[in-house]
Amino acid sequence: MFDKVLIANRGEIAVRIIRACREQGIPTVAVYSTADKSALHVKLADEAICIGPAATKDSYLNIPAILAACDLTGADAIHPGFGFLSENANFAKTCERCGVKFIGPGYESIEMMGDKAQAKETMKQAGVPVIPGSEGEIGDLEDAKALAREIGYPVLVKASAGGGGRGIRRVDSEEELEAQITAAKQEALSFFGNAGVYLEKFIVNPRHVEVQILADSFGNVIYLGERDCSIQRRNQKVLEEAPCAVMTPELRRKMGEAAVKAAKACGYENAGTIEFLLDARGDFYFMEMNTRIQVEHPITELVTGVDLVQEQLLIAQGKPLSYTQDEIHLTGHAIECRINAENPAKGFRPSPGQIKSLNLPGGPGIRIDSAVYQGYEITPYYDSMIAKLIVYAKDRETAIKKMKWALAEFLVEGVDTNIDFQLSILRDPDFAAADFDNGFLERKMADGEL
Amino acid sequence: MFDKVLIANRGEIAVRIIRACREQGIPTVAVYSTADKSALHVKLADEAICIGPAATKDSYLNIPAILAACDLTGADAIHPGFGFLSENANFAKTCERCGVKFIGPGYESIEMMGDKAQAKETMKQAGVPVIPGSEGEIGDLEDAKALAREIGYPVLVKASAGGGGRGIRRVDSEEELEAQITAAKQEALSFFGNAGVYLEKFIVNPRHVEVQILADSFGNVIYLGERDCSIQRRNQKVLEEAPCAVMTPELRRKMGEAAVKAAKACGYENAGTIEFLLDARGDFYFMEMNTRIQVEHPITELVTGVDLVQEQLLIAQGKPLSYTQDEIHLTGHAIECRINAENPAKGFRPSPGQIKSLNLPGGPGIRIDSAVYQGYEITPYYDSMIAKLIVYAKDRETAIKKMKWALAEFLVEGVDTNIDFQLSILRDPDFAAADFDNGFLERKMADGEL
Repeated sequence: MFDKVLIANRGEIAVRIIRACREQGIPTVAVYSTADKSALHVKLADEAICIGPAATKDSYLNIPAILAACDLTGADAIHPGFGFLSENANFAKTCERCGVKFIGPGYESIEMMGDKAQAKETMKQAGVPVIPGSEGEIGDLEDAKALAREIGYPVLVKASAGGGGRGIRRVDSEEELEAQITAAKQEALSFFGNAGVYLEKFIVNPRHVEVQILADSFGNVIYLGERDCSIQRRNQKVLEEAPCAVMTPELRRKMGEAAVKAAKACGYENAGTIEFLLDARGDFYFMEMNTRIQVEHPITELVTGVDLVQEQLLIAQGKPLSYTQDEIHLTGHAIECRINAENPAKGFRPSPGQIKSLNLPGGPGIRIDSAVYQGYEITPYYDSMIAKLIVYAKDRETAIKKMKWALAEFLVEGVDTNIDFQLSILRDPDFAAADFDNGFLERKMADGEL
Repeated sequence: MFDKVLIANRGEIAVRIIRACREQGIPTVAVYSTADKSALHVKLADEAICIGPAATKDSYLNIPAILAACDLTGADAIHPGFGFLSENANFAKTCERCGVKFIGPGYESIEMMGDKAQAKETMKQAGVPVIPGSEGEIGDLEDAKALAREIGYPVLVKASAGGGGRGIRRVDSEEELEAQITAAKQEALSFFGNAGVYLEKFIVNPRHVEVQILADSFGNVIYLGERDCSIQRRNQKVLEEAPCAVMTPELRRKMGEAAVKAAKACGYENAGTIEFLLDARGDFYFMEMNTRIQVEHPITELVTGVDLVQEQLLIAQGKPLSYTQDEIHLTGHAIECRINAENPAKGFRPSPGQIKSLNLPGGPGIRIDSAVYQGYEITPYYDSMIAKLIVYAKDRETAIKKMKWALAEFLVEGVDTNIDFQLSILRDPDFAAADFDNGFLERKMADGEL
């Protein structure tokens, strides 16, 4: 058992980890920036150490300061939470060298999954479906035509040196292919100084569906069902639910088994998530693997009954998984709304300030993972998420009803929040019908429906 | 479906009922005394009506004012919660006569179960185990001896006209019987002016174990497992858990079936609880039936997944039960701690006042049913319970660990609370070993162990 766990994070996830440690009887150390000295994680941990000024590079990303804090307090393990250093292979490696257990996968797994091209190649070799496309740059037009025919239209022509959405062209039929390749090459050359382009299948209106896995140091890997995280704004998840409303038991098994393959292919240990794009035909494609606990982990905890952070601690202590695959059953439906201090009417601009009044919903099926309290001052330095409101009910319809009253009861005075925006999503008839994909939010907002 | 439900109650149970109505899309009316105008149930209901001054007889027990509030608002149903008018047969009858649906059993059931002697007789005839004893007063000594031999020692000799613990004598063997009967008669005569005494089996160190039932208007009755409420102070429950740690599947079935018989015997409809004394040999005896929802209902909700207040609303709307007996499965373990504004060091004296600061625990497995908020003024007029902290975990040991950190996070400033007292119960080794009975708290407190 660990003597003491240092939590290299802040906010609600730091609080979540402190609670998990307490439940196992493990003392905790919080680290904090000068801006966070009144933060809840600082109050709740057994010890707290200031590791630098507000700027994240000087505090929450400050590896020497964090390892010094371990040394000072005698912490023999670090939980990185999510964000910050959680997917920093160098940090994981440095922890290992300093004899501090990094509560997460080995640094080799982080490295392998952090390099998107290498990750895709590893997945492909492991038999995990990846988005079909050319291996490297397109050769001549006939090769491109043959490949496009094989993977099926629409396809994307993408600049090898591209980024930021530049140099990407959609091709819907063979007739358009030559012209679009020519145009894409010209664009690529002028934007990136490199005319190389490659071909990739265009996944039409996919959903973001991700599979939670747990892997221990004995080679056991299990999947814990999926989360639908299609409700996104600018690639930021806003609302997540488990299970995915369009999932079938057969597809869940296929995606789950692919996720297990993915984890095994990179020698994974600890909790992880494999993100897939799921199209309307039920085909799915590997996007990336998140080698850490995720913001939306509570919805999986509610439908499976598994405490994922406890499992992380146990795995890191060399224990085998507490569950076999056969023991994982999904029951009921869970939804998470991220509550952000931001102003949706002003382009979701962050809204720092003091919380003058706070009333949290409670009662049956309500879970709140929060890091704020009445009187707390939200600083402008970090993520605007101040709480997660999670509901659990017997089915999706009831969960939506529950989330509606819970959001209506969630009162925050002193700063702006996205609570009303979340309510508008829940009231949307297409959302209620589970008829959405990754483009849902931006389409609805563009149409003035949200 | 109801047009509108009036909640004839206050505090956390009023809030609980408002949430249940909201989930079903039913508008709500709160009623309140002048002392409660800032109460949470008033803020959360769709409408709120003042029904009188602080004294309960003038407001929460004021039947004409409550029915007038129905009339004014168009409420066609009343949920009485617990306490106040919830077990008042006259109120239930008056509601019926006024064409307002009382969300609870018919008044005949309330009447039958409210008369303890009649209730015991009804149960006995229905085949529900009752505490064995003489039918009426003892005749001669030989009859008393024969009966005592039949029911087994120890027995109690109790004054027929007794009360308040007076005129009760324990008899451990036949040799003592004559002398104790004589003494009890003399005592009864001098205290109550009536020498009549009766015999009852003395249940040694029983646990308070109660069975939750649901009954609809179609004659379907199901049991939803049990709650162990042995942790009591002066007959007030302090901490409850589900399931009971010493329960076996066989005993659960027997008690459950007895509870169903009890409900059927009084033509019961809606949610109800049959309270039993359970002795160390696994024999159990009917104590009483509570013809309403109970304070501790959330622990049953957590282990069964059934929303009892939703079921109450559905039953009262003439719907059949949402579950059959076969669909009721118990999973995990739940504990509830009643959080009271009181001072354990000063004889648990109520501690009214303003809540200056409030921090509620959250995270996995935490449920809070509360009616207070930071800045709320607790008045001296009503029950001192301000919140219920309920935890749910995979087993009893984990639930205890969880409750410990949750209580430690529960911060209330401005008034005294029993939070530390609850913590001391959870830390007690006998409690941890589930080695307790109804006398646990008072014994431990007398011994200075709590």
